[in-house]
Amino acid sequence: MSILVVGSLAFDTIETPFGKADKVLGGSAVYFSVAASFFTEVFLVGVVGKDFPESHLNILRERNIDLRGLKQEDGATFHWKGRYGYDLNEAHTLDTKLNVFEKFSPDIPEAYRDLEYVFLANIDPELQFNVLKQVHKPKVVALDTMNFWIENKPDALKETIKLVDILIINESEARELAKEYNLVKAARVISVFGPKYLIVKQGTYGALLFTNSSIFSAPAYPLEVTLDPTGAGDSFAGGFMGYLAKCQNLSDVGIRQAIIFGSVMASFCVEQFSVERLRILTDQEVSNRFTEFLNLTCFKEI
Amino acid sequence: MSILVVGSLAFDTIETPFGKADKVLGGSAVYFSVAASFFTEVFLVGVVGKDFPESHLNILRERNIDLRGLKQEDGATFHWKGRYGYDLNEAHTLDTKLNVFEKFSPDIPEAYRDLEYVFLANIDPELQFNVLKQVHKPKVVALDTMNFWIENKPDALKETIKLVDILIINESEARELAKEYNLVKAARVISVFGPKYLIVKQGTYGALLFTNSSIFSAPAYPLEVTLDPTGAGDSFAGGFMGYLAKCQNLSDVGIRQAIIFGSVMASFCVEQFSVERLRILTDQEVSNRFTEFLNLTCFKEI
Repeated sequence: MSILVVGSLAFDTIETPFGKADKVLGGSAVYFSVAASFFTEVFLVGVVGKDFPESHLNILRERNIDLRGLKQEDGATFHWKGRYGYDLNEAHTLDTKLNVFEKFSPDIPEAYRDLEYVFLANIDPELQFNVLKQVHKPKVVALDTMNFWIENKPDALKETIKLVDILIINESEARELAKEYNLVKAARVISVFGPKYLIVKQGTYGALLFTNSSIFSAPAYPLEVTLDPTGAGDSFAGGFMGYLAKCQNLSDVGIRQAIIFGSVMASFCVEQFSVERLRILTDQEVSNRFTEFLNLTCFKEI
Repeated sequence: MSILVVGSLAFDTIETPFGKADKVLGGSAVYFSVAASFFTEVFLVGVVGKDFPESHLNILRERNIDLRGLKQEDGATFHWKGRYGYDLNEAHTLDTKLNVFEKFSPDIPEAYRDLEYVFLANIDPELQFNVLKQVHKPKVVALDTMNFWIENKPDALKETIKLVDILIINESEARELAKEYNLVKAARVISVFGPKYLIVKQGTYGALLFTNSSIFSAPAYPLEVTLDPTGAGDSFAGGFMGYLAKCQNLSDVGIRQAIIFGSVMASFCVEQFSVERLRILTDQEVSNRFTEFLNLTCFKEI
């Protein structure tokens, strides 16, 4: 099955202890799409400005991402400037210029409305809600959000979360959304909001999956070189949804393997700035790293 | 095989967001011994003051811990006062009174010197070195230390680390010891210092094992109630060494399973203050939680 993703496309200007990148291709929908494209076809809805170069669009076209839902509007593209210290789990925003993204109102092309796998990247929950009104019969809807919406649009966010199957957020967001520090308790609170699955991203520590019957703990891949953590969470979501959509195995094992493929894609993403590592990644490397996750976690005689 | 442990016995006065405990039984050798006693016989070397109550000794005797190496000296017992916030990974020391522990000089009883499994809990590395001069032919030596010794006695610490098989430290200690932030690189630096195995404890995020050929990532057990994290690291070491000494399986799988048993014991430890949870723990509960760790990490069709 194919996937619809709605989210941001951006210029990122980033400093990490290991290097700098100026106005490189970024944005949640970009990282998600490129990662998911290793598993299935992706249909993207987003907006860029007139300054968005053809070379950036070509990066997406190379991965066979359908761009009929991408609008190019008068004005400048969303531009994020950020910095990381050695603790790559924490981004420090230096500047955010929303530009054309400020008035983004997702308009789902007719050709996209029957897609059964939908990923709502981190945007205003009212817009996420509007997307769900436009799609016909999605089979699996996953949603990402951030502290800003939890604090500023809690009601709209909760209305939207009611309609999704999978919530993919980070630790601090889960705590804030549930108003509960303990993650096991927070997961129980959030399950009452609606989603059947809660995935809690923990950066360099991996991810936790909470269902009503079990918890799954996925490690992060221990990397020797992490140039830039930007996009890791969206690449994780891309690998996760891509694998789910490809295999359509919504059993416990299917979801768990999808989480490992998400972790695989996140681990490659951070090896370079922007989507540079994902651009040169091969299917064989993806498959090898999945095997390495088995070795990383196994403690049974085989 | 039995285990020799050298470390502290203490009174702990602790505040967490979930409760308080005043002058309860604590200390690295205590947590280690009680946890390890679920797997094998433990021989303890340490010191307490005249104020150390018989009831505390009885807690250790109940677990069949051999106390011939425990000295009771004139003066007061080591007393630690600490506080934790919601982030249970960080202890805030309010007061440390070393008391009789300040002049502790481990004297290994003749009857203990042939023990083949040795755990050097976190004490002055010069004393740890002296212990190793007193034992005859240890088969497996594991050592814990802390930032204080890394900063203040780096040379003595490195001399001692040369002689140990397994180093069990936390993330920030590994980074400081190796002078390297990235853990994979830090592990490589530390392996040159001598130890064949490096276990990096990551609190509520689990633990990593580095050997020269592989990395193993063990999750922490997701708990709904954590009353007090004090002693988790030493209980981990106790479960780990206890299982190793019992099974004497030093293969990769053996070491990995020992790490899971360490994680099992740490997860029980934190459910109550002091060793209260470990005192009422059953072998069946230990075995059940090991199985839960399998469920927590499995992503293969069975």
